[in-house]
Order: sequence, then structure tokens, then C-alpha cells
Amino acid sequence: MRVAIAGYGNLGRGVEAAVTNAPDMELVGIFTRRDPANVIIATDTPVYAWADLPTFADKVDVVVLCGGSATDLPEQTPELAQYFTVVDSFDTHANIPQHFANVDATARKAGTLGVISCGWDPGLFSLARLYASAALPNGADYTFWGRGVSQGHSDAIRRIPGVVDARQYTVPVPAAVEAARSGKNPQLTTREKHTRECFVVAAEGADLAAIEEAIVTMPNYFSDYDTTVTFISQEELNANHAGLPHGGTVIRSGRTGLSDEFGDTIEFSLDLDSNPYFTGSVLTAVARAAYRMHEAGQTGARTMLDIPPALLSPLSAEELRAHLM
Amino acid sequence: MRVAIAGYGNLGRGVEAAVTNAPDMELVGIFTRRDPANVIIATDTPVYAWADLPTFADKVDVVVLCGGSATDLPEQTPELAQYFTVVDSFDTHANIPQHFANVDATARKAGTLGVISCGWDPGLFSLARLYASAALPNGADYTFWGRGVSQGHSDAIRRIPGVVDARQYTVPVPAAVEAARSGKNPQLTTREKHTRECFVVAAEGADLAAIEEAIVTMPNYFSDYDTTVTFISQEELNANHAGLPHGGTVIRSGRTGLSDEFGDTIEFSLDLDSNPYFTGSVLTAVARAAYRMHEAGQTGARTMLDIPPALLSPLSAEELRAHLM
Repeated sequence: MRVAIAGYGNLGRGVEAAVTNAPDMELVGIFTRRDPANVIIATDTPVYAWADLPTFADKVDVVVLCGGSATDLPEQTPELAQYFTVVDSFDTHANIPQHFANVDATARKAGTLGVISCGWDPGLFSLARLYASAALPNGADYTFWGRGVSQGHSDAIRRIPGVVDARQYTVPVPAAVEAARSGKNPQLTTREKHTRECFVVAAEGADLAAIEEAIVTMPNYFSDYDTTVTFISQEELNANHAGLPHGGTVIRSGRTGLSDEFGDTIEFSLDLDSNPYFTGSVLTAVARAAYRMHEAGQTGARTMLDIPPALLSPLSAEELRAHLM
Repeated sequence: MRVAIAGYGNLGRGVEAAVTNAPDMELVGIFTRRDPANVIIATDTPVYAWADLPTFADKVDVVVLCGGSATDLPEQTPELAQYFTVVDSFDTHANIPQHFANVDATARKAGTLGVISCGWDPGLFSLARLYASAALPNGADYTFWGRGVSQGHSDAIRRIPGVVDARQYTVPVPAAVEAARSGKNPQLTTREKHTRECFVVAAEGADLAAIEEAIVTMPNYFSDYDTTVTFISQEELNANHAGLPHGGTVIRSGRTGLSDEFGDTIEFSLDLDSNPYFTGSVLTAVARAAYRMHEAGQTGARTMLDIPPALLSPLSAEELRAHLM
């Protein structure tokens, strides 16, 4: 199948690698809103201007959108669904129903298929929550993120006056993870579940106490958490905090039996060296499924919750039954 | 939806409990090959003779088969697929393709749907292997079972002369689990992955050394494992080994990036107080999906790999998108 990438940042690089390594896919082009001549990419794939996308309607089977959820995808996914079967990683959880409705309307009208909110959360973690709650209806879910880099929180620190660079790690509290596994269905507050570790490069002569105060009291981002701030040099940040590792754990504990006699725990976890490369790999598997579902006549919006899992794999249904069941 | 249970052992009890606790299901009847008058069940559901099943074709939406994989299900699932949409837990991995073909032929002809090999392995573990291999194509899978009771191995011990009762636990080797998580893709032998712990009640005056030798040298079951045998009294077995706990872990480690720069690990694990009650709960969720797929016009055989996950949940697609994504 012929795949295009729309948007080339960290996630675009991840999809580029995964599609290039997929035996059943051809990477037709990378589309950018920048001047294509100035975009250096990792493979020899052609780079095209965003405005050329509609002219590729007959040359591309699936477009994987790699823009951000704040302003890019709410506009871009419905726009491109006019021409293509599309896959995105929209991850603003509260706005998923509205984004779904927007993509659904355009895709139904255009006869295309749009799979939104793919990746690991939303995505594989959503699936873990769904399977676990279906298998164990009488129970409670817990999602822990990290230890990993939150790009949104890192950006928020960088906007504070006097900050040159920053990296923020989200860290699950081990006691909270153990409590979730215990089967006692504890009520855990935001502060009890995660801590936040900030590594900050300050400008020369900046007021470090003021920066630390600005971080730990920042509403929504840090004020509800126990946050630690460590000032380091740019060299140390580059040497020890250049990567984008992430991961996390979904735990459901619950009870079976006519009178809830038995306690069970279901756990799904990820430990990722590179968040964007893994997310790109998941989007690539979803692109395969989206292509197959559209070929079978399906149109409109979908999420990973709607995809028959076998469609994600390059293996045939017979091979899957023989080797993975 | 109206559900019936065909076969009433441990697994039938598990399905009975799960269907009874499901708000969207009615348990119409339990069908048995024994004399219904002699079958004591846990609820006030009517008990019927197996031979009456065909007369319920218009009164039941899905039949959940709860027989064994050795001789029951290969006959029963195709037989009942003539009349009903069916769900089974056929778990002889090597024979799944043949069983699938048999059920598919009958179900297509009859216009019914048959979902085979549901539960946790095959079932949720198959799904974990599929999602992990689709998300991380360049990697290796490891499945560990236990610590839990293997009923097949317990039965094999009970057939040895001089053995009155026995319980066998399958136990993963912690070093092997750590090696699988390490990302080094180790080759692990059967002996390196699991040990087997046997608790045996011997007849008075039996030759304990001979029993132990018969166990640890038994081909297929024990000879490829490091096996320990502990002789205990019937009272101790009843007091400490009456349950059927089980569980296990599916681990995939692999690499992403254009040149495999990044290492990732995906892990799915279960810790179950009662294997049959949890398996019954999974079968009940699959019965819901099977009903919905058949209502949408699908016929033939399926596995859990073919089921759009949202269909397993009693929640609507809108509720799932709003609350689980």
C-alpha cells in the first residue's frame, strides 16, 4: 500500500522509519508546510509542499498525519479526509468526541476512512482499558505514565523567563502502583499517583529561586504534584536528557464469581526508548488496517477500539491463527 | 441478549456467574449431557437435557460451550453451530486451524457465527502477542504461564498408580522473565522458562520413590522441566491447594528506528484467583460481541483476533470514546 506522511517533526520521523521498514508499504512522499527544499529527512523519500496534497489523491492510499493536537490536527485531519483515508494521533482526550464527529462527517461525505487518536495513549492503553474492563466488569482502572519525558510540560517550563532549556520527567509513585495492583481498589489523588522531575538550564544570572517557584506553583501543569527542580548546564542536559523515553502501565483489578469470591489483576505496560518512534510504529500498523477497512468498503471515522486486531498485522489470518493464537 | 450454557463443569460455573452478573444478558438455560435432575447449579437457571438444545433455536441468541478441548469441543462446536451462534474456549493450540475450518464450514452453511478459542490463552494472550508484534514488528515474543495450577498436569499425576490426589503448579523462572524483558532477545529452552511443582497425596503404603520417579520422567508433561515433588496429606491438599489460580505474562521486546536505534518492551500480564471464573468472564464478553456481529449479518468462524474490541463492552461506542480512550 502507498503511504504519505503529512507533517515532519519527531513523529513524522518515527512514521518514516516504520513505513520504510514495513515490507508491504511504499512511502510515496513527505508533505510539509515549510519550504520542501529546506526540509532534511532521514531517507530519500521525495518531499512535497502541503498544497500539493490534493493532487496525490490517486497516488496515495493512506495519509498519516503527524502534526500536533493543539492546533494542527483539528484542522488538518478533516481537511485531508476529503481526499484520503487518514490516520492521526490526536491526543487531547477531552476533545476526542468532537474531533471524531468532525472527521466522521467529512469522511462519510467523501467516501474515505479516518482513524483518529492512534498511538499508545490514546491507543494501546485505550485498548488495554477496554479489554480489561470487558473481561473484568466489576473492577477499577488505573493508568500510570512514565518514567518518561512530557514534551508539553518541558515546553511549559521553557516559557518561564530566565529558562534556556528544560526537560520534565513524569514519574509514577511506586507505592501507588503497588496499591493499584493490590486489588483493594484504592482512591488515589493526582499527587499520590505521579511526581514530576524537572531538569532546567537557566540563563546566566537568572533568579533560580524565582524560576523554581514559577514551576512548582504553575496551575494544571505542576501545582497538583510533588515537583522537584534541578538546575543543570546545557551540556549536561544535552548529554543525559536528549532522548524522549516514555512508557507506563494500565492496571485493572476486579472480582469474578457469583458473589465476587475471586480477585484478579490485569496489567499492560510499555517501556519505550523513544516515544515518537514507537508511536510512529503504531500509526503505521493502523495505516495498514485503515487501508484494508477502506478497501472493504468502510467509510467514516474510527478509533483503534473499532479495528479488528488481525487487520493491523502484515500476516494473513491463517498465519495468525497458526502462529499467534 | 439470551444466552445458554452447554456443559456444566468449572468453566460452566464461571460463565453462569458472569452472565448472571451482566446487565444486558439473560441466562436462558444450562444444558447438560448428564441427567438434568442430578445437576446442582449455583443459580435458579433451568437445567435441560443436551438433546433438547435444537428446540431452543428460536429462544437463545448465543450458546457458550463449556466442554473440554480433547474430545468435547471438536464435536460439539460444529454440532451446535448448526442451530446457534456459538462461543468456545478450544485451547489445543496445534489444532486451532482444523477446528476453525470445521466450525467455519458449518456456520457458513447454517448462517450462524462461531467464535472459537476464547479465554486468556488462547484469547487475551493471543491478542497481546498480535498487538505487540504489530506495534513492534522487529522483535521477539515470550509467553510465561503461572504461577498457576495446570489441570492437565494434575490429572496426569493422578493417573499414576498409588496416587490418590495431586495438584501441579506451573512456575515461571524469574531469571528467564528478566532476560525476556531485557531486550536482548535471548533463546530460552523449555527447562529455562518454567519449573513444575507437584503436591501429591499418596495411598497408604505406596512406593513414594517410584511415584516421584514416574512423575519427573513422564515425557511431554515433566521430563523437559525441573520438577519438584512434595508428598502431603489429603487434608493439607484440601486446605492449601483447593483453588485454581493461574495467570502469566506475554512479553515482547523489539526495536524501532530506521537503523533499530531504540529498544522497547511491551508486557501484558494476568494474576487470577480463579482460572475458570476469569475464563468464563472473557467468554461472556465474547458472547456479547458474537451476538452483535451476527446481528450485523456476519457468519462463519472467527477468533478474538477478528473482533472489533468495542463490541466486547456493554458500553456504547460514544461512551467508550468519551471515557476509555
